[in-house]
Amino acid sequence: MPELRKDPIIGRWVIIATERAKRPDQFSSKTHEGPPENSCPFCEGNESQTPPEIYAVRPGNTPANKPGWQLRVVPSIAPFLGIEGDLDRHGKGLYDLMNGIGAHEIVIESNKHIDDMADLSEEQIAMVMSCYIDRMKDLEKDERFKYVLVFKNHGWTAGGGRVKHSRSQLIATPVNLKRVKEELVGARFYYNYHERCVFCDLIKQELESKDRVILDIDGFIAIAPFAARFPFEVWVLPKKHSCDFTRLDQGMRLDLGKVMKKVLMKLKKGLNDPPYNYILHTAPFRREKVGYWKSIDYDYHWHIEILPRLTRMAGFEWGTGFYICSLPPENAAKFLREVEV
Amino acid sequence: MPELRKDPIIGRWVIIATERAKRPDQFSSKTHEGPPENSCPFCEGNESQTPPEIYAVRPGNTPANKPGWQLRVVPSIAPFLGIEGDLDRHGKGLYDLMNGIGAHEIVIESNKHIDDMADLSEEQIAMVMSCYIDRMKDLEKDERFKYVLVFKNHGWTAGGGRVKHSRSQLIATPVNLKRVKEELVGARFYYNYHERCVFCDLIKQELESKDRVILDIDGFIAIAPFAARFPFEVWVLPKKHSCDFTRLDQGMRLDLGKVMKKVLMKLKKGLNDPPYNYILHTAPFRREKVGYWKSIDYDYHWHIEILPRLTRMAGFEWGTGFYICSLPPENAAKFLREVEV
Repeated sequence: MPELRKDPIIGRWVIIATERAKRPDQFSSKTHEGPPENSCPFCEGNESQTPPEIYAVRPGNTPANKPGWQLRVVPSIAPFLGIEGDLDRHGKGLYDLMNGIGAHEIVIESNKHIDDMADLSEEQIAMVMSCYIDRMKDLEKDERFKYVLVFKNHGWTAGGGRVKHSRSQLIATPVNLKRVKEELVGARFYYNYHERCVFCDLIKQELESKDRVILDIDGFIAIAPFAARFPFEVWVLPKKHSCDFTRLDQGMRLDLGKVMKKVLMKLKKGLNDPPYNYILHTAPFRREKVGYWKSIDYDYHWHIEILPRLTRMAGFEWGTGFYICSLPPENAAKFLREVEV
Repeated sequence: MPELRKDPIIGRWVIIATERAKRPDQFSSKTHEGPPENSCPFCEGNESQTPPEIYAVRPGNTPANKPGWQLRVVPSIAPFLGIEGDLDRHGKGLYDLMNGIGAHEIVIESNKHIDDMADLSEEQIAMVMSCYIDRMKDLEKDERFKYVLVFKNHGWTAGGGRVKHSRSQLIATPVNLKRVKEELVGARFYYNYHERCVFCDLIKQELESKDRVILDIDGFIAIAPFAARFPFEVWVLPKKHSCDFTRLDQGMRLDLGKVMKKVLMKLKKGLNDPPYNYILHTAPFRREKVGYWKSIDYDYHWHIEILPRLTRMAGFEWGTGFYICSLPPENAAKFLREVEV
């Protein structure tokens, strides 16, 4: 069972892996190993190479764990957190820890061996978004979980695996993540003063100035954020206020598929298939039960942050959360606007 | 002039580089270029290849910018922040920005072409620590600056340069960094409840359990922190309470040189010369003038965080500040304790 430990000074939770822990001497090796490219456990026909599926889109009602699917969700074979057991939060002197309860699922985004989400169809990407929503709604039923982190690692330097088959990950956690909390608190702070959503204001200002707008279609806006941390960082936001990604209706899911396809294609074509991550930022579970989060419906606004990884992170960026972005976001937006897709 | 921009939601400051900004199309290239190894601007005799020195240790009183030095500080040739001008903090709609005033200095840690600080003598490392103190005291006189970030990037993946000559960097900033603030606030919170320093309590607990102690010599302790973010993360702390690194006396500086030498040698020998960063965490400038920070002398405790970069960071770690550490710190500490140096 992995362990969740809290930094006693700043309150940051960390997962200390035990299941996937390596021996100390394994870290000194500088070679990487992985399965050969010709054996992909995520391709149609190789269902037996993954754990049994949790969820699948099977238009022909084919049996589980057999061919005939368009999208599958399976548990991670090396989960960061374990699904079995009760939460056991306790202290150890001044330290706080918890057994590592959680869920860790892999969304296999296509039955074909396609590497980048940019190369999936708009409809297929919309299906991935719908899958996130279905899985999040299902995981919310588990009272132990406070949040589901949805993210993608594309390319080796972005933390992607050796097998080049487009997929994303869901991690359900029994704690609220520091960065999520910071965003909620920041948005609340702004709302308390202005009685307006900071994201809505930001969208309005961006649409007026246009300098940082990459796309403005179908109810969504893609921008290079004003205080970008990374060159070509892109945020995708619904123009209409909503704190909760899982409330997206079918029409908006299709529109989101279209926008994500365009943004990812622009990055791929303009920047020569860069490694990237994206992370979904949405409201936490059971917020109506937590007094402090009750007004999230008004003050928070879900969005997706796409972070291309084209530059190395310097030491102080890791250690301080203080970033240097070597490209003004206005220049990045102009460049991406002009990439034809 | 670079620009400092504040994220409107979570309040994180970011430097948007203009001087060192690349053109957007330069990011798609996957090749790296740098000066050839045989021309090192940091070696003795090549003083004319750097900007004029700001500080140097010259035991024979040799003239500035000539041979005869043991350590030199020069301005960065590609500074993140510019030294000239007045602070101009202003708004732009809902956004906050500031012209990028600050100082960015390079500490050349040896006149010899030595790559890793681990290979410098204890006395030479102590001289580097003394240099940090002298530069911080000098920069504090500039009323525009709130903090000096002292850090080292060793090795390419840790953000180090192509030229393999041991050096570290100082960045003076006109804003307090988010991570620094979080630590100060967290330490204050603990102090308010317990009336004790959280770091002092932590040191006491670590010395009792011994599981995570790597070294305990000469007034310093080196530990693998309880909630380590990275495999082999090491914190070096003075056992005696002190919030301010610049108050370190001559004897303690020599002891710190000894401890740093041992820790860095253990990492180098045990892990095959890993890339790493270290970051000095110390109290901000002019704290006595800021009511809120007045009790820092009691509740904060300076330390150095050493972060080996042996694993890739996954997407969600970048986006959420939620880390997965693939090696329990107890195992890391045991391994490093046993590396003979």
